[in-house]
Amino acid sequence: MNNIIDGKKIRNEIIEDLKKQVKHYLIKPCLAVIQIGDDSASNTYIKSKEKACNEIGIYFKHIKFSEDAKEIEVINKILELNHDDYVNGILLQLPLPQKFSADKIINYIARNKDVDGLTDINLGKIFNNKNGMISCTPLGIMKLLERENVDLAGKDVTIVGRSNLVGKPLLGLLLNKDATVTITHSKTKNLKVHTKRADILIVAVGKKHFITKDMVKENAIVIDVGINKEDGKLYGDVDFDQVKEHASLITPVPGGVGPMTVASLMLNVVSAYQKQQK
Amino acid sequence: MNNIIDGKKIRNEIIEDLKKQVKHYLIKPCLAVIQIGDDSASNTYIKSKEKACNEIGIYFKHIKFSEDAKEIEVINKILELNHDDYVNGILLQLPLPQKFSADKIINYIARNKDVDGLTDINLGKIFNNKNGMISCTPLGIMKLLERENVDLAGKDVTIVGRSNLVGKPLLGLLLNKDATVTITHSKTKNLKVHTKRADILIVAVGKKHFITKDMVKENAIVIDVGINKEDGKLYGDVDFDQVKEHASLITPVPGGVGPMTVASLMLNVVSAYQKQQK
Repeated sequence: MNNIIDGKKIRNEIIEDLKKQVKHYLIKPCLAVIQIGDDSASNTYIKSKEKACNEIGIYFKHIKFSEDAKEIEVINKILELNHDDYVNGILLQLPLPQKFSADKIINYIARNKDVDGLTDINLGKIFNNKNGMISCTPLGIMKLLERENVDLAGKDVTIVGRSNLVGKPLLGLLLNKDATVTITHSKTKNLKVHTKRADILIVAVGKKHFITKDMVKENAIVIDVGINKEDGKLYGDVDFDQVKEHASLITPVPGGVGPMTVASLMLNVVSAYQKQQK
Repeated sequence: MNNIIDGKKIRNEIIEDLKKQVKHYLIKPCLAVIQIGDDSASNTYIKSKEKACNEIGIYFKHIKFSEDAKEIEVINKILELNHDDYVNGILLQLPLPQKFSADKIINYIARNKDVDGLTDINLGKIFNNKNGMISCTPLGIMKLLERENVDLAGKDVTIVGRSNLVGKPLLGLLLNKDATVTITHSKTKNLKVHTKRADILIVAVGKKHFITKDMVKENAIVIDVGINKEDGKLYGDVDFDQVKEHASLITPVPGGVGPMTVASLMLNVVSAYQKQQK
């Protein structure tokens, strides 16, 4: 039984599709990534964004500030990029060094260039069921479910984890697709009751093998957002080997949701470009 | 056993409290209400807002457009009010005549004067757990629960109804208070399963006596947002007489959530005034 969702394959299809579109443009779409400091995980993530941009034909602009930059310098750079017609998407690479307020800085990004979908207004647009920029991991999950022809209407979905990056935007997106959504988190009592009754279980807590087989309903669809490193290996939030026997569809780690995040970012950059051309 | 929440009493306490604050201001806070057309229910609602303003000492500005006004005229008026330092809150009375787009017009209201809390950005701020303007009915419900000392952390809350005015903002507010929240709606299958397991059940569907005793858990807290008119009488979405035997706390209709909506609007106007003075 092949019940494993191949995120890498779907990622590649999206990239291929975008490549075909971008080929026809005189001026390349442009993504500007702002980095503050020199976090090694951030360096890796930025490289994978640059790689995807190069594959598609998106111009990649890497703007690097040292850790002792002033907040106002970063904000001024964002304002400059907001007004630059050749820049279509702006992303602030997270996490930031402690003295910076990510939340404050992000909200200076123009809503139509906010390709990470993290500004207040773009989150509000999701909940008002309007076209805005959708943050990349939730968008990637929706694309996976779409490609697997999962009908969400009336389905019981339980989300574990309520982060601004994943749980909350997903809540709005699933609601817009007529799912019945429960959002759980660290303060939830009897978590198992909520995971066990879910037709679709989405887990984003950042704890290796947090979800075990006894917490999952037979034939549920299981989406694992976790990426946990241990001894150089990657593990999901779901005990994959156990749970896969049980689930009708499941994403592996790595190779499930992960690759979709960059693909979604690319979708957002090209869609921002298209809207800005109009 | 007195398990009935007296919304009218709490409303009066809030109004009294605001009155004491406003007494000390040289310049009155000002609420501008924009009405398009002459809907009779709207006329009643606007009168109750004016009455509350007069009680507290808030200047009430009623701006009325005829039904054949152009959308651009309404928008221009909003832009003018946005820039008027003597106007602290702007509210567009809903519903609008069909040819107008409420959603479009509302989003011209400056975020810090959006006392109805219906702009995209203020909804986004709720979900990002930031201080913004909170729409009045959800805010009123949170105030009721607060006054009744209901601890929301870890409680299972089921919301029935996902409107932009009630269900969705409530979802964010309850999540910020660490509740485990499920949002249900017309596409939900087995609604009873979700209402029956709720520690707190909040109903906003607009259907008389939609929630019956068998759908409610023993000792649940039941908040009824419905206002349904039949033969000149008002009925809630909950079959009050049946369910009250069962619930640990319950709001009546009328006299429950209803009076809190205007009280919340007044809270928003005074809080907008205070922030704008800084």
